[in-house]
Amino acid sequence: MSKDILVTPQYVTCFEPPHELVLSSGKKLGPVTIAYETYGTLNGDKSNAILICHALSGDAHAAGKHAPQDAKKGWWDDMIGPGKAFDTNTYFVICSNVLGGCKGTTGPNSIDPKTGKPFGLAFPVISISDMVTVQKALIDYLEITRLHCIVGGSMGGMQVLDWAIRYPGYVRAALPIATTSCLSPQSIAFDEVGRNAIMKDPDWNKGNYYAGAAPHNGLAIARMIGHITYLSDESMHAKFGRRLQEREKYGYDFSTEFEVESYLKYQGDRFVERFDANSYLYITKAMDYFDLAEQYGSLRDAFSAVEARFLVVSFTSDWLFPVYQSKEIVKALIENDKDVSYCNIDSPCGHDAFLLEFDQLSRLVRGFLVNA
Amino acid sequence: MSKDILVTPQYVTCFEPPHELVLSSGKKLGPVTIAYETYGTLNGDKSNAILICHALSGDAHAAGKHAPQDAKKGWWDDMIGPGKAFDTNTYFVICSNVLGGCKGTTGPNSIDPKTGKPFGLAFPVISISDMVTVQKALIDYLEITRLHCIVGGSMGGMQVLDWAIRYPGYVRAALPIATTSCLSPQSIAFDEVGRNAIMKDPDWNKGNYYAGAAPHNGLAIARMIGHITYLSDESMHAKFGRRLQEREKYGYDFSTEFEVESYLKYQGDRFVERFDANSYLYITKAMDYFDLAEQYGSLRDAFSAVEARFLVVSFTSDWLFPVYQSKEIVKALIENDKDVSYCNIDSPCGHDAFLLEFDQLSRLVRGFLVNA
Repeated sequence: MSKDILVTPQYVTCFEPPHELVLSSGKKLGPVTIAYETYGTLNGDKSNAILICHALSGDAHAAGKHAPQDAKKGWWDDMIGPGKAFDTNTYFVICSNVLGGCKGTTGPNSIDPKTGKPFGLAFPVISISDMVTVQKALIDYLEITRLHCIVGGSMGGMQVLDWAIRYPGYVRAALPIATTSCLSPQSIAFDEVGRNAIMKDPDWNKGNYYAGAAPHNGLAIARMIGHITYLSDESMHAKFGRRLQEREKYGYDFSTEFEVESYLKYQGDRFVERFDANSYLYITKAMDYFDLAEQYGSLRDAFSAVEARFLVVSFTSDWLFPVYQSKEIVKALIENDKDVSYCNIDSPCGHDAFLLEFDQLSRLVRGFLVNA
Repeated sequence: MSKDILVTPQYVTCFEPPHELVLSSGKKLGPVTIAYETYGTLNGDKSNAILICHALSGDAHAAGKHAPQDAKKGWWDDMIGPGKAFDTNTYFVICSNVLGGCKGTTGPNSIDPKTGKPFGLAFPVISISDMVTVQKALIDYLEITRLHCIVGGSMGGMQVLDWAIRYPGYVRAALPIATTSCLSPQSIAFDEVGRNAIMKDPDWNKGNYYAGAAPHNGLAIARMIGHITYLSDESMHAKFGRRLQEREKYGYDFSTEFEVESYLKYQGDRFVERFDANSYLYITKAMDYFDLAEQYGSLRDAFSAVEARFLVVSFTSDWLFPVYQSKEIVKALIENDKDVSYCNIDSPCGHDAFLLEFDQLSRLVRGFLVNA
């Protein structure tokens, strides 16, 4: 048994006025504080850095513990550490909280310097590119001029694509997992219903709730919807089936009685303890807006200037970011004669597979990094 | 152009105390008023009756208009009428609102005779079998001893299965469409999130809202979730893609801007005008409880005594009531040496196909009824 890595969150503030961040919307934002963590040691020529990009509800705490007594480790601890796929004996691994998040990087729950109060809806609507621009500022601050690899699943994968396209010289290898070049209308629809649930919660109060009760009911509904889309019909059959919770027979009432209901309720209730409802609005909107073909004229044109080697990974049962979307990325890279490998991992776990299929992912990652 | 059929809703009250309906829960309910409509003429030996069973949000108004100026016709008007698949020149077609509904049949918005006020949550939790028992009382009242055919899609198909199993002598032909012998855990999960959205709406007030504001926000969220599951990824791409509504470019705000968002919002807003939130709770719960294998020991045992000829219909892109669920029904009927035909209609329309694929459905229905 290896000892847990202990890690301390770090912070850096960039984009101080008058050098504000110019957002995709044209608006300006600054200063921007970035919360990040690092694992392993940056080597002398700063060539061993790997950037991990987190998904919608993730944060900078990707591995290890903040204190020995912590009950939980970082969200991708199975992948990051000494001897693990992202081996911290070899690599310097970085993970930062995204712009718009609620775990230390500037977002709607941060203090607006203009008012001295939390931004709320005064926070500007952001894009995936804006998140990446902020990460780029962190990498510049760390004086790293080329990342050995950038990796991320789901929304993290969108950031990987944006990085490889906009900063081609900075990315030696790109590993987008369970992601897409644009959300399907079905995924936008799920996002919109989740946002509606939040915004229709009376406690949301047009985003101005930081001094009072937060819109926990709406955020929990949004999270429950999300969780259905992260699993698969197959994995739900295996995990819950139609089993009842603490009952032998139907109760003929409206209490939580199927195990799957209990699971969703638990996920919703836990989520509101750790996540900000406004961040959920901003981050899902950024995902909805992400559309490389629209932005660059075509997906082929989007990838024309990338220099990174690619490994694209999808999961067979992922219906939120379906396999065909990964194949579209691979096709566009091939059309540009780029160096791309593709693996469609056979998994029943749905979209959540990128947080679960560590054995298969680790084998792929090790091979990919060695050859990078 | 044929003239519109004009139809008048009819009502009959059954289960007058002390002959109350004994529900699956063991509780008693009575009297029960049944709202129904009929199209065509019952023949002399009462052998030409067809019972239509409606889905979650349907009602007894399956065809024609109530008045010439009505903007909309009944929900399955394309299938029912002179010369149509359910040809009212030949058949006497009946459709009744389900028990627990909100369109004339006794449900949570009906007056509780014990209190003189709407039932609200004092209404007992019901099952699909309870709905069918009430339909059986209507058929008895009409002095029909054998139905030429029973047909229904989605929850209507569950009723078809229950009819054929519990009243084998009454059903000559059974036509369950886009249905299942039990909901998948994924479908239960979607139902539960919808119910949560309603019950967390402050206007729900534990079901006691009939004198004030109704929980429209919660019900609209539930309906939006429902609509995503009624369509398919394919049909959403075809219908909406990632097109914006009344905008050329992203607005960088939280207004409704993608067409798919606008569609869902419209569906949610219209639904609250015509449907009762408590009915939504009761009917979805009845669907969640429906489980023939659990009730009869196995699906094979469930169908052992049926006498009806079956035509089972599914749709290729239906992911709410997936094809494998229809195949399970067909398999169980075959294992019992029953007369069953099966058709998996190639359609991109998802679960909604049973309300859209009239040409393909009509051809199947005509052939099936002629041979009945």
